[in-house]
Amino acid sequence: MAIRFFPKEVDFFSQFEKAGSNTIEAANILVELFERFENIDDHIKRIHDIEHANDDLTHEVMQQLGQTFVTPIDREDIHALASSLDDVLDLLWAAGDRVALFKVTQGRPGATALARSLQENTIVVHRAMQELRRKKYAAALESCIEINRLENAADELFRKEIAALFTQEKDPILIIKWKEILEHLELATDKCEDVANTIESVILKYA
Amino acid sequence: MAIRFFPKEVDFFSQFEKAGSNTIEAANILVELFERFENIDDHIKRIHDIEHANDDLTHEVMQQLGQTFVTPIDREDIHALASSLDDVLDLLWAAGDRVALFKVTQGRPGATALARSLQENTIVVHRAMQELRRKKYAAALESCIEINRLENAADELFRKEIAALFTQEKDPILIIKWKEILEHLELATDKCEDVANTIESVILKYA
Amino acid sequence: MAIRFFPKEVDFFSQFEKAGSNTIEAANILVELFERFENIDDHIKRIHDIEHANDDLTHEVMQQLGQTFVTPIDREDIHALASSLDDVLDLLWAAGDRVALFKVTQGRPGATALARSLQENTIVVHRAMQELRRKKYAAALESCIEINRLENAADELFRKEIAALFTQEKDPILIIKWKEILEHLELATDKCEDVANTIESVILKYA
Repeated sequence: MAIRFFPKEVDFFSQFEKAGSNTIEAANILVELFERFENIDDHIKRIHDIEHANDDLTHEVMQQLGQTFVTPIDREDIHALASSLDDVLDLLWAAGDRVALFKVTQGRPGATALARSLQENTIVVHRAMQELRRKKYAAALESCIEINRLENAADELFRKEIAALFTQEKDPILIIKWKEILEHLELATDKCEDVANTIESVILKYA
Repeated sequence: MAIRFFPKEVDFFSQFEKAGSNTIEAANILVELFERFENIDDHIKRIHDIEHANDDLTHEVMQQLGQTFVTPIDREDIHALASSLDDVLDLLWAAGDRVALFKVTQGRPGATALARSLQENTIVVHRAMQELRRKKYAAALESCIEINRLENAADELFRKEIAALFTQEKDPILIIKWKEILEHLELATDKCEDVANTIESVILKYA
Repeated sequence: MAIRFFPKEVDFFSQFEKAGSNTIEAANILVELFERFENIDDHIKRIHDIEHANDDLTHEVMQQLGQTFVTPIDREDIHALASSLDDVLDLLWAAGDRVALFKVTQGRPGATALARSLQENTIVVHRAMQELRRKKYAAALESCIEINRLENAADELFRKEIAALFTQEKDPILIIKWKEILEHLELATDKCEDVANTIESVILKYA
């Protein structure tokens, strides 16, 4: 193994911030899709392009992590942040993609509310990444609390909407479709919480 | 980074034991729920309170792990134990919660049997955590074998009950509901096995 | 803790190669099952025996990893490779097992195509493990690219087949069954990609 005595500086924090802004952008398109149910394939394609670009970014972070000798924070935390940020976008994309695959033609207010809650959460996740990069630790911890609050609220939205789906809907095939879309949205907010937990743990280690 | 020269002692093993006893308590309520199908919301609330308290405990373990310089066992093993123990309780709670969300009004003997098997497994998991804390390694390894045996038995129960569900039940919506409840129960026992695998690996490292 | 001053040599790479060949063998039986839909229980039993033997192999790798003081590549990479290889086989087995559990009596061409794509991928995964062991890094990186290409193709097959399932099939119970079988096949190819990502990261670290 050739140890790198002069490690190149890799700016992981900027990459995380970029992943955060990618996620906001995709969430904006997803909310538009859920609100209007028009030009579905076009919306899906745009989310897919962002998701694809973010895959490349995540891949780059992971490769640079393997080749970098000195890292600004623990390696496993860089790995965890890159993975969770990527998971948010993957699940957000999957939620939208299911709308197209299942040929769903009409929205549900509860699902739109859940998509909006996810959108709100991606904004706070992005802000937390900015705060982490600028070493504004107190602000970043506040953002983590906000991410957790939004995740709890999303969980309640999810549970109410699942209960409503089974009460209101009699077509089992439509239940299968919406249940899966809602689950992907809820998992995406779970991954926002994973991001917050890692940020919090990083700050408590070094502050 | 400010290195802590005088690390405070964190008693991770007591925290794991507490997580183990939380899980037994929740499993007892779940079995009661599956056996009687009465006061469902009350049972769910009690499980939720335990799950919530355990979330706080897990969070505490993770934060202390980040701030502790010397750990009694490898950091990744502490992380793995805390995560898996938390996952058992999360999935156990989710299984019960689905009963309420889906407004299921009647039990299935196969599901009750699976819940009882999980209950039995939580007792052995808790015992294994006690044995690990008291450095009774031979006994702890025996408990791990028992956890694996119970997990295999639960897997067979799960597979038989899924087959029975699709054979006996003609209502697709009821199939969707019970399939998900059964899957959560089965995943909870999988996580018991994850706990056992980590305990075993810890003992083989240090014994 | 008794440090091993004379660590026994553990040949992790041979174990990974063996896991790879186990996976090919199981994939061959799965494809036969999907093509013919005959002697289903017999096919499932043969896949299960391979899956079981591979569980033992993975367990052995993990225990040896805990007891080995010096490892040829980073410990977390050995852990990741052993886990992902095991996951491929677990999910492949689960896909086949669902056919038996759900008493599915007739195949779907799209599912067979997905199983064949997985079979193709297991061959490249096995080749990549051989190349890694023989330090043929350029060839191994080429194999990783091929695994990624196959995974993308499988993802497209999966999405088309899910769309077709919901368009063609009117029986919700059959949709539930096939959706789950297809998901397991698709997850198995995802895990092939995880293997490729770890191999790539290992090579970039040491090359």
